[in-house]
Amino acid sequence: MSILTRPILEINLNHLVNNYRLLQKLAADSIPAAVVKDDAYGLDAKIVAQTLYNKAYCRHFFVAHAVEGERIKSLVPDAEIYVLQGIGEDSLETFQKLKLIPVISSPEMLAFWKEHRIEEIKPVIHIETGLNRLGFREKELEALSDADRQIFGMVMSHLACGDEKDHFMNKHQLENFTRLKEKYFPKLPASLSASDGVFLGRDFQQDMVRLGAAMYGINTAPYRENQMENVVYIKAPVLQIEDLPTGEFVGYSATYRANSPRKIAIVSIGYGDGIPRSLSNVGKIFFKTLGKLSEARIIGRISMDNIICDVTNVEGLKVGDLAFLADDFYTLDDMGRDAGTISYEILSRVGKITRYIRKYTE
Amino acid sequence: MSILTRPILEINLNHLVNNYRLLQKLAADSIPAAVVKDDAYGLDAKIVAQTLYNKAYCRHFFVAHAVEGERIKSLVPDAEIYVLQGIGEDSLETFQKLKLIPVISSPEMLAFWKEHRIEEIKPVIHIETGLNRLGFREKELEALSDADRQIFGMVMSHLACGDEKDHFMNKHQLENFTRLKEKYFPKLPASLSASDGVFLGRDFQQDMVRLGAAMYGINTAPYRENQMENVVYIKAPVLQIEDLPTGEFVGYSATYRANSPRKIAIVSIGYGDGIPRSLSNVGKIFFKTLGKLSEARIIGRISMDNIICDVTNVEGLKVGDLAFLADDFYTLDDMGRDAGTISYEILSRVGKITRYIRKYTE
Repeated sequence: MSILTRPILEINLNHLVNNYRLLQKLAADSIPAAVVKDDAYGLDAKIVAQTLYNKAYCRHFFVAHAVEGERIKSLVPDAEIYVLQGIGEDSLETFQKLKLIPVISSPEMLAFWKEHRIEEIKPVIHIETGLNRLGFREKELEALSDADRQIFGMVMSHLACGDEKDHFMNKHQLENFTRLKEKYFPKLPASLSASDGVFLGRDFQQDMVRLGAAMYGINTAPYRENQMENVVYIKAPVLQIEDLPTGEFVGYSATYRANSPRKIAIVSIGYGDGIPRSLSNVGKIFFKTLGKLSEARIIGRISMDNIICDVTNVEGLKVGDLAFLADDFYTLDDMGRDAGTISYEILSRVGKITRYIRKYTE
Repeated sequence: MSILTRPILEINLNHLVNNYRLLQKLAADSIPAAVVKDDAYGLDAKIVAQTLYNKAYCRHFFVAHAVEGERIKSLVPDAEIYVLQGIGEDSLETFQKLKLIPVISSPEMLAFWKEHRIEEIKPVIHIETGLNRLGFREKELEALSDADRQIFGMVMSHLACGDEKDHFMNKHQLENFTRLKEKYFPKLPASLSASDGVFLGRDFQQDMVRLGAAMYGINTAPYRENQMENVVYIKAPVLQIEDLPTGEFVGYSATYRANSPRKIAIVSIGYGDGIPRSLSNVGKIFFKTLGKLSEARIIGRISMDNIICDVTNVEGLKVGDLAFLADDFYTLDDMGRDAGTISYEILSRVGKITRYIRKYTE
């Protein structure tokens, strides 16, 4: 019997590169840019950007904030780094120093750019086509002078419902995008789609696709089987196994009560490790014992450092065995569904936790 | 008009120290240990531990994992550091090198300790009294030899419902704890309560209290007004303000539709910054304009980097103004309630994000 206490996070960089290559193939006529914002969805933008740069020859990266571009700049020296949240007083110096490319999304930000223009850099203009988030509205495009329109090097927008193949918004946004681009920026290269748009076909792929979620293994086309390889693996050791007599309560606020004798395992991982607390009393944990895979239900509230699960039907489980929280057979997409959220949110949490034993497979 | 893009996280260390001192006063006959696990609930264990050590003379710290103890050891050189998840093969070296004190919660872990015993160190024994999480069950205590019982330097347990003043579990756990302690460890100092137990009175405070959540400003006695000072302040700049015509949709999956003309603001913060996605279409954001505080509802899905809110009734709002997401007037407890979770989970997420402009008030 071994005694272990720390949870383990494994990130398969081969799978990540394979996913990038598959998406690249699916959008063969587009430039495949990699989205490494939010610290590469938590997986460490330095490692992810460097891997894609060296192994997949990726030369275009998107981040949300200039400070995120700064983290990767020296690792991808001759790549273009686009900054989605744009440029402002709190990031101007970083843009100047590193020649990052801002995405400009409003007349106010354009005014700021014109005041602080950085030579050699042609910003991207973000135009609004239906998401109603960032981007120039049509009346604001109309107000641009000819000189204003010369400032930009690319035009982009973003889909609201790209993960639903037949959603009316897709056609609506594509029409808006095509019309506005032709009218105001007919000569510029264009980018409309993130991973989900890649699966909507050539029209949506335009000149550049922005590959994020699917590259990290998420199914961004959930209307069909996931074509991506799994990237994130989460395990944690069983710290203790105990009998739970009938009538006993489990966890904070006593939200679980045993109505028959149960056997429980305490697993050394919790919401402090990014596992959503909303999996309390509904989530699943897996074990591999006696050569087979068993499923156990999470019982009671998930706490910061521990999860309790019902292992009554898991044969041969021992203290020190590993519990499997995310794997090929139960991905972050599955966890997101069970937790009432999306895998993106969980991925973004998990990767930022420093107390995991963290392993990168290359 | 200023253009800003990055969210801001402010941590008021004065308030944190004040909270520690108030809790110390409320449990005046107990040793006030500080719980800095999970990287001090995300607020940076190095900074929090050093502050408590220097300004509040705290000399007892609890972490979950040895690797967390390692982060703070040199900053609190002569303090005792207790490790709640205990000791195992994956942490033995760290315990040996730094003389951390393991909390031993199972016969299996005790067997491991006896094999790898570290001189000078007296571990804590965790006994189970009703939470049904980690800890020795009574039959396992019965099985301990006299020599086994001599190994330990303190006995601890943990409350399941300490945040509900009159919950039957509190009395039940106190009785169990008192009985088991008297029977098996009559001479050892005892620790039963975290912050919530401090408010349950002297009986629950025992010899040492483990101060965590309340120190970080969370109301762990929600049956009455919070006596703690707020510690966490979250702000983010407004990137764009736009009119939203009737019939338009907002955000991913088009979950919000305007049934009358609205004005919206896009705020540069999202779930990538730890703001729970479950606040989509229900959460609140605040603004200070024209000398007054206004409340705006979050509309549409929260995305990784942006939140959209309805500012139709917020007068005088400009691009570059700050939105207030957590503050004295809307704390993480409030956000937790609106998000269908608890402030602990949000705190644990927010503090780990590196792209915030982070400020510590001293």
